[in-house]
Amino acid sequence: MSDLIASWVDGVPLKSVPVDDRGLQYGDGVFETILVRSGTARFLEAHMARLRRGLAVLGISFTDEAALRADVVEALRIAPSLAILKIIVTRGSRTVRGYAPRGEGAARRIAMLWETEAPAGVDQGVTVHVPAMRVSDSPRLAGIKHLNRLENVMAAAESLGGSAFETLLLDRREEVVSGAASNLFAVRGTNLLTPRLDRAGVAGIVRGVVLREAPRLGFAVTEQTLTLGDLIGADAVFLTNARIGVVPVRHVGEHPIRMSEIVMTLRTRIETLDA
Amino acid sequence: MSDLIASWVDGVPLKSVPVDDRGLQYGDGVFETILVRSGTARFLEAHMARLRRGLAVLGISFTDEAALRADVVEALRIAPSLAILKIIVTRGSRTVRGYAPRGEGAARRIAMLWETEAPAGVDQGVTVHVPAMRVSDSPRLAGIKHLNRLENVMAAAESLGGSAFETLLLDRREEVVSGAASNLFAVRGTNLLTPRLDRAGVAGIVRGVVLREAPRLGFAVTEQTLTLGDLIGADAVFLTNARIGVVPVRHVGEHPIRMSEIVMTLRTRIETLDA
Repeated sequence: MSDLIASWVDGVPLKSVPVDDRGLQYGDGVFETILVRSGTARFLEAHMARLRRGLAVLGISFTDEAALRADVVEALRIAPSLAILKIIVTRGSRTVRGYAPRGEGAARRIAMLWETEAPAGVDQGVTVHVPAMRVSDSPRLAGIKHLNRLENVMAAAESLGGSAFETLLLDRREEVVSGAASNLFAVRGTNLLTPRLDRAGVAGIVRGVVLREAPRLGFAVTEQTLTLGDLIGADAVFLTNARIGVVPVRHVGEHPIRMSEIVMTLRTRIETLDA
Repeated sequence: MSDLIASWVDGVPLKSVPVDDRGLQYGDGVFETILVRSGTARFLEAHMARLRRGLAVLGISFTDEAALRADVVEALRIAPSLAILKIIVTRGSRTVRGYAPRGEGAARRIAMLWETEAPAGVDQGVTVHVPAMRVSDSPRLAGIKHLNRLENVMAAAESLGGSAFETLLLDRREEVVSGAASNLFAVRGTNLLTPRLDRAGVAGIVRGVVLREAPRLGFAVTEQTLTLGDLIGADAVFLTNARIGVVPVRHVGEHPIRMSEIVMTLRTRIETLDA
């Protein structure tokens, strides 16, 4: 039983990919997780821009963006009122075995349409688990949404069986990076503070929307170092990602976190936007 | 054009894997690269042991080792006199979207048989490229052969177009980790020195065979920190992996490296072994 509704590989309705795809062999590719709402792929241009940025970092030549956009249209045609459209672009199949990207064919695009539900009961604030796992510094890969996600998997696995909504990612300096599948902000007065993502983490699309919208709502935003202590002492903490939008945090581990109307103001504003 | 001869997915001759496989989605799995020579899968038990170790680190339950061994037998039946048998075991297909390994089905095993050739002309020593890329510390994942290999890809990509046989992996302390697809030793007198792999790198099977065989040949082996300067000042440097066995290094970047008969002694010894 899977909640995968449909998938397309290079535009063809297919449920499988060639076994020699470098995405499977090495995680050699990037992806986007797009919320589809009432027939619209939300923040599509921002997702496309990040996809292009990631492909440039990996040196993957991708000339099929028009075809990818056609895949999106096709997915929207059959999507339920709420769905996740996940797009993967890999370096394609290997024609020569080995790490070096030598002699491979064209990049491969994969589109997957998944069922999803609106996150329930999150307005009252969620719990974020603090795992033992610490993530690596990888400045060359930081910010992009590449397919090497074992650290996210291992951190998220630590919260299984508990009631946490999300798992925190901390680096070895004990600095906050993000959630395993979200970005994180702390509120201090009318300032929104969020970690720089120059050593680890993914620069989320809704994070970018918050950075853009906050000044219009009268809030300042600063990218800066945050520790667990900074979260615990904050006026509020919230998570962002494409699926959940803006979600207030009520607990970080055992520590209660204050709630602020600022978070609901942001949540409401972001909910109204599609671009 | 691919040099993939055949592949099996969960024992079935198939050239593709389900699109929702967590190996593709997240690099959530491990692999082995086994040299098949004259109908024998060399060092098979060591490969199986490392596979089990990696699966344990990732918390992937894999109960099909007997079936995997049957896949190996099937591959050996059709393998040419020299081939690469690559085995991947992933956490299987996702039944629920998200990083946390929740509700997924059984682990999935993939066997691929690739054409290969004996490395030509390596007895005279090879060149190792020194890339700009520095690899991450990831102590939880160090040593195992997991599917998150973007750093290897990016380092190897830096040597494309040149004449280098291999690319060095260095960490941010400027300490040597390994080659992008090999392990590395320096010779000092009758001592063989090789980096510890507790923060990065893969504990190669032939590396393990060298650690085992060296004392029998009268050499001491020490796992210790090595810098570029240590390589340049060494009596000899050599690479190891399953495909190439033991290969002497003649240049590290622009720096000539001395050659030693010790390396050829090791190379010859290792060539005679299958287990």
